[in-house]
Amino acid sequence: MRKAEQRVLQALLEGPKSYWRLLRDSDLTGQNFSQLLGDLLGRGFIESRGEFFYLTDLGKEFSSGLSPLEDLSCPACHGKTVIANGQFSGLLEEFQRISQGRPRAVSDYDQGYILPSDTVSRALFLYSRGDLEDREIIFLGDDDLTSLACALTGLPRRIQVIEIDRRLNDFLREKARERGWKNYEVLDYDARKPLPEELHGKFDVFFTDPVETLPGITLFLSRCVQALKGNGASGYFGLTRIECSLEKWKSIQENLLKMNFAVTEIVRNFHEYFLDPREIAERGYRIATNAPVKVGKPDVNFFRSSLVRIEAVGEPKPLITEEVDWKRDLYYDEEMWVTLP
Amino acid sequence: MRKAEQRVLQALLEGPKSYWRLLRDSDLTGQNFSQLLGDLLGRGFIESRGEFFYLTDLGKEFSSGLSPLEDLSCPACHGKTVIANGQFSGLLEEFQRISQGRPRAVSDYDQGYILPSDTVSRALFLYSRGDLEDREIIFLGDDDLTSLACALTGLPRRIQVIEIDRRLNDFLREKARERGWKNYEVLDYDARKPLPEELHGKFDVFFTDPVETLPGITLFLSRCVQALKGNGASGYFGLTRIECSLEKWKSIQENLLKMNFAVTEIVRNFHEYFLDPREIAERGYRIATNAPVKVGKPDVNFFRSSLVRIEAVGEPKPLITEEVDWKRDLYYDEEMWVTLP
Repeated sequence: MRKAEQRVLQALLEGPKSYWRLLRDSDLTGQNFSQLLGDLLGRGFIESRGEFFYLTDLGKEFSSGLSPLEDLSCPACHGKTVIANGQFSGLLEEFQRISQGRPRAVSDYDQGYILPSDTVSRALFLYSRGDLEDREIIFLGDDDLTSLACALTGLPRRIQVIEIDRRLNDFLREKARERGWKNYEVLDYDARKPLPEELHGKFDVFFTDPVETLPGITLFLSRCVQALKGNGASGYFGLTRIECSLEKWKSIQENLLKMNFAVTEIVRNFHEYFLDPREIAERGYRIATNAPVKVGKPDVNFFRSSLVRIEAVGEPKPLITEEVDWKRDLYYDEEMWVTLP
Repeated sequence: MRKAEQRVLQALLEGPKSYWRLLRDSDLTGQNFSQLLGDLLGRGFIESRGEFFYLTDLGKEFSSGLSPLEDLSCPACHGKTVIANGQFSGLLEEFQRISQGRPRAVSDYDQGYILPSDTVSRALFLYSRGDLEDREIIFLGDDDLTSLACALTGLPRRIQVIEIDRRLNDFLREKARERGWKNYEVLDYDARKPLPEELHGKFDVFFTDPVETLPGITLFLSRCVQALKGNGASGYFGLTRIECSLEKWKSIQENLLKMNFAVTEIVRNFHEYFLDPREIAERGYRIATNAPVKVGKPDVNFFRSSLVRIEAVGEPKPLITEEVDWKRDLYYDEEMWVTLP
């Protein structure tokens, strides 16, 4: 029995589930998940009633011997490995205060926020890996406001945000001004342009949540890598399974090695995204329109991503340094079912 | 300030620490750690009194602006992302019962046990990633008895252990006989020999805790990879920082990609090893003999390793299939400071 199929059946043995809940736990791309579900419907193992899927008698018979899926995720850290202790215990509340009035997500830029607690967990994670205190950190794109969570700790030596969305940049600059942060800068920057000379080789750490086309992620990672100081510098980025097949993961890892990095950690489902359920249901995202049956609005945050940490082994070598003139193909490929074309 | 140096200083700002405690938290190879510590002693930033290291006044001045290191590891799962819920809640106790009378670790085979709770966490981790229930699993080397923890759940379809140590194999066979496990087999196997034909392409999952020389780990992973069924099959192995530099991590990852695998997860410090403190202090391990000052017996489990999960993207391709005649160089290279030559 194929693994992904078994997972769906075990989840339904546990009880009826929505399309979105099954998708969330599948580790498949949207396209593969939709195919799998269509196949299980076609073979008569599952059926949909209202917004939920159920095992049929045939499906129960086929699943005999399997047990209902149990969730073993740590309830304390939610699988993120770190928690907010000591000086960090008030960080989430402070982050929620400072992020009030943030600009709304813009799907044109492939934006969508992770939960505020996940943003704070990023700062905790960086700290515990020695990548926050006294570090010079660059953020390429920051609609999740991770730079603010990091700055609120007072620990980084310098923070530089480079981001295309001027609404967001104005917001970040205003917060820095209000707080009197002298070591926090924001630059209007389109990743298709070369990285400004003065940012080359200046940072200990980068953080980015890249677009997930292979050219797009190669571009984002290249810009970030060019900003790093050298051997031992580290980088972080998010990576999904839902819009990024393992074939693409493999290609990304090949590129990382070519850029002279080793992968030191990958924490699964570190990030949970809040995507507007009405938008997902109504704006023509393929994840909804190409589902095998008509599906309702998402009832869970089905879009999650892993956190990847890399570290330079030798001199960081960006694969792209010149300007590129990519248009929508920067954001969009055939695996992008939760992105508008 | 170099990152590793800062980490030692911040740890000592928190309070005096033993050599072993500082080493444990350093993310460095034994050799690099010993050099770093020698350097800090030489510059007068730290001093050793009895079995502990302290910051000197000069060191405190040099560290001004840094704050004491806080431990943010999740106290519930200890950074392993999973906990024992539901049907798994009694697993640790059962595992401890079944592993009574296990053969002692043999340093000739680079053996050393992880904590029983870590062995059980491996089984939980496999389960939560869909790699336990109804799976055919092969273990290359199993001095940690992970196959027993998995078998006790009753969930795998088949378990095959291949291991060189006959004492251990007799122990495992006896336990399987006592329990009446029909789907649990043990084969006396030296990884230098080709993988027996009848095990080629038969398993969904492999688990191994390889020796950490580059030829050694390539050999172990190749044997395991050859046992896998194909696209989508997965594998797990442990990897340290203390005996395996990031240069070597990078080479290992290059080999994994060549074998047609993507790395899907790396959980830092998943395993903590219990190594006999007296043996470490007295048997001539370089980690003790090459320390910059005379050090006492380990007061913490300083030897830890990450858990790496990989998944086949296309057909698994072992890099080594023939017999090799390596001797001690299978186990030993210049980074092996916690291994006897």
